[in-house]
Amino acid sequence: MTIETAIPQETGAPAGERRGRRGREERARAAPQAARKPQPRLPFAPVAAVSADELEAIHQASLTVLEEIGMDFLHVEARAILKEAGADVDPDSERVRFDRGLVESVIGRAPTSFRLHARNPDRDMMLGDGYVAFGSVASTPNVADRQGGRRPGNRADFQNLVRLCQSLDAIHIVAGYPTEPADLHASIRHLDALYDMLTLTDKPIHAYALGRERIVDGIEMARIARGISRDQLEREPSVFTIINSSSPLRLDAPMLEGVIQMARANQVTVLTPFTLAGAMAPVTIAGAVAQQNAEALAGLVLAQTVRPGAPFVYGGFTSNVDMKSGAPAFGTPEYMKSALLGGQLARRYGLPYRSSNACAANTLDAQAAYESVFSLWGAIMGGANLLMHGAGWMEGGLHASFEKMVLDADMLGMVAEFLTPLVVDADSLALDAMREVGPGGHFFGCAHTQARYRTAFFAPMISDWRNYETWREAGSPTAYDTAERLYRDKLAAYAEPAIDPAVAEELAAFVARRKAEGGAPTDF
Amino acid sequence: MTIETAIPQETGAPAGERRGRRGREERARAAPQAARKPQPRLPFAPVAAVSADELEAIHQASLTVLEEIGMDFLHVEARAILKEAGADVDPDSERVRFDRGLVESVIGRAPTSFRLHARNPDRDMMLGDGYVAFGSVASTPNVADRQGGRRPGNRADFQNLVRLCQSLDAIHIVAGYPTEPADLHASIRHLDALYDMLTLTDKPIHAYALGRERIVDGIEMARIARGISRDQLEREPSVFTIINSSSPLRLDAPMLEGVIQMARANQVTVLTPFTLAGAMAPVTIAGAVAQQNAEALAGLVLAQTVRPGAPFVYGGFTSNVDMKSGAPAFGTPEYMKSALLGGQLARRYGLPYRSSNACAANTLDAQAAYESVFSLWGAIMGGANLLMHGAGWMEGGLHASFEKMVLDADMLGMVAEFLTPLVVDADSLALDAMREVGPGGHFFGCAHTQARYRTAFFAPMISDWRNYETWREAGSPTAYDTAERLYRDKLAAYAEPAIDPAVAEELAAFVARRKAEGGAPTDF
Repeated sequence: MTIETAIPQETGAPAGERRGRRGREERARAAPQAARKPQPRLPFAPVAAVSADELEAIHQASLTVLEEIGMDFLHVEARAILKEAGADVDPDSERVRFDRGLVESVIGRAPTSFRLHARNPDRDMMLGDGYVAFGSVASTPNVADRQGGRRPGNRADFQNLVRLCQSLDAIHIVAGYPTEPADLHASIRHLDALYDMLTLTDKPIHAYALGRERIVDGIEMARIARGISRDQLEREPSVFTIINSSSPLRLDAPMLEGVIQMARANQVTVLTPFTLAGAMAPVTIAGAVAQQNAEALAGLVLAQTVRPGAPFVYGGFTSNVDMKSGAPAFGTPEYMKSALLGGQLARRYGLPYRSSNACAANTLDAQAAYESVFSLWGAIMGGANLLMHGAGWMEGGLHASFEKMVLDADMLGMVAEFLTPLVVDADSLALDAMREVGPGGHFFGCAHTQARYRTAFFAPMISDWRNYETWREAGSPTAYDTAERLYRDKLAAYAEPAIDPAVAEELAAFVARRKAEGGAPTDF
Repeated sequence: MTIETAIPQETGAPAGERRGRRGREERARAAPQAARKPQPRLPFAPVAAVSADELEAIHQASLTVLEEIGMDFLHVEARAILKEAGADVDPDSERVRFDRGLVESVIGRAPTSFRLHARNPDRDMMLGDGYVAFGSVASTPNVADRQGGRRPGNRADFQNLVRLCQSLDAIHIVAGYPTEPADLHASIRHLDALYDMLTLTDKPIHAYALGRERIVDGIEMARIARGISRDQLEREPSVFTIINSSSPLRLDAPMLEGVIQMARANQVTVLTPFTLAGAMAPVTIAGAVAQQNAEALAGLVLAQTVRPGAPFVYGGFTSNVDMKSGAPAFGTPEYMKSALLGGQLARRYGLPYRSSNACAANTLDAQAAYESVFSLWGAIMGGANLLMHGAGWMEGGLHASFEKMVLDADMLGMVAEFLTPLVVDADSLALDAMREVGPGGHFFGCAHTQARYRTAFFAPMISDWRNYETWREAGSPTAYDTAERLYRDKLAAYAEPAIDPAVAEELAAFVARRKAEGGAPTDF
């Protein structure tokens, strides 16, 4: 495989300038860890779903949509910013139309890749440039484990899922609330939840764009957790937010506030239209993706107008619905094609690309697995740089599953290993081993094998490779059974990551102060 | 997607010359069928696992293996043929060494693609040229369904699996005995089994290379079933055989007899080394594939010496073993990389490529599904033209599963749909639909959707997209439950395909005569 896989390197300032005092102290204090695998990176070119001409036709269709139909921006300031940028803002409605030149003018402003900082610098992730970062499940209203069944999201399960995210190396980013901690009052939920995410893990995190207060609080807590100045924060993206358009062709106020605040702080916007073909978008994949593309480009214009160069990720989430019932479907052939096509568009615009590990299954059966791997196939071969819902997503996002999180993490580990370049050299070509063993021999005992067999292959957590008889004697466990046992084992072995006590104190004080102030409005 | 997908076209003689009288009559008599989907064809370039230089290093390593170490050919005639071709045949052993020039000289002789004929010409499949043909599971000693459990293969289950292959459109080829009909005496098993395969289905078939008599009988029965002359058979490949080397670096007598007889008759040899890394091949993937490649090339030399231009498929089956137990593993990251790499080598030699849908799971759980889809991912993106074990393979090939066959067929249908090129034109870009619906609207009711929704998306057989409550009220069925119901429904609805009574009679007479002659020796 031809692109060198390396531990991500900062492309900006030298390392010595990158971290404040606390960052350095924290790093120095961190306990020695087992060598962590480098971030996965695509070792081959992403796969194209359409020709260059067809891609251009989709691009042009999107520009026509934005020029002729326009989009509704349900936010006064956003419309004012866009008017100032030269968009055609209807004074009597929320409609904004963009001339082609305006859209084209912002393409190329955002970085093609950047580092997403975690409070533990060893957990930083690159977004873009062939790198892939695996995010956890996020934003499910319900949570399930096999024993406890399916139930509304709550803080205890939320915390346990965050702990599981921390324990599973294949999960790189806590990409939102793995389940909604709905027992926390909406006005202060984001404060407690972000506090949990910033203390129970040291991986990069997501903050929700649900009105100005919440996203501003999220940005500030990410800054405090890293122990850095506002200036440094603005140089170093340290939190990301998912912006979903209310497709078709509409962005609502809480989301637009998020785009504006995140761009102002130079933090990461991932604009992901929710374009289910046949429901919120045309029933044809080309049309649904053209609409997805129009909505993403509109968000790009706003973000790059607020702050040219603000990190921006192109999100693709186009899937189809079950036309018998209207239910959303995931991991379908149409989803896979959309995932490839979204990646082509993102690359055309020089933007990192977000896709997802999605499935519509209600239980952890073969369907959950095949829909997930088909989603991964489309996402990875499409060149996704940020994989949302990478571990734990079930039922079209209506519940997070503890067992699925472990199973997905195992599958993500396999994907990462698949992306690790094959080594082809004299040693791996093993001519001497073949000479030693010869025709009709066996390789297990030879020196070449003995020197390597312990680490030669990826060792999955769940796959049961025992022979049938042994497996049956062990009670015929399924992958679901094994995942259930493993998630409990992982939680039992969980250790909270080190944190500078001063940082933890400052975070807690911030939460207390903002709670005393009443938190965030709940009438958005 | 850029390569046109089309119904396969014969590249040789005009269609009117292709079939004998019986073939034409059979076609005329065939009941009208629902339009069958065209054979899948890769709409993008296959993915490369290594650079051109690395590929060359593997090729050179394979040539060194064949030149220095050589291979054991356990067959007198095969050694004589190779000696005549210029190979270095050790008179005191079974060892044959090949100089580099000899190997290089046969590369390019075999066709890059060809049509594999079925007795029903509508079922013909192209092998090569970007086309993908999905074969059934083959050669499992055991068979299982959920209710009956796992049991030794037998003719009744064999016949039912063949019927299921016929019923499932996504299965293109009956790629061997879906399970071994072990209750048939070994001397006449091939006769009854081939009779079943040629009457219960009208899809292309495989015959086993288990000594001269069996493969010669298989070739003759394929000829009779098509109602064609020997001359026409030699122009039109009508049966294929899998040749497994006894890795490392050994080809046994029954297999070598198969290579010789199939090449003489211009029928299809699929040479597939059984190179499990760490057991029958080096523990490193590059080394295991270098050995695979050496073994495949040695087979190519023999086949192309016997008959230059005989159709030959490059088979890749390299996987790893579980280094804790020695058990074979499938659908692993190492398997995926090997699948990509095998495709690169096949293309280097201008040969169609065979890979597999393999898994090691003991039951139809999430593991069975994820290992299978990972295998498919490697095979399809690696450019496989013949997918062996496409439907029904379980437990590393130790049992065939009725339920898995249906589940796999559903997954193969999804893969085929994924490979169907996206349409990008004015109609699919749907600008008018977006204009009609506008921001904030819904697409379900619009004319563009209404005209297309019934056929817009792939409709899976198994995926359960009902909402959680409805699904739970229905008894919380898993994919396994649904596959179990479906396989029974499909078998109940099975209809034997039309056959010219004269052909059926000739087949039966052949079987009776060969049985009267004692069938085939059982001491190979």
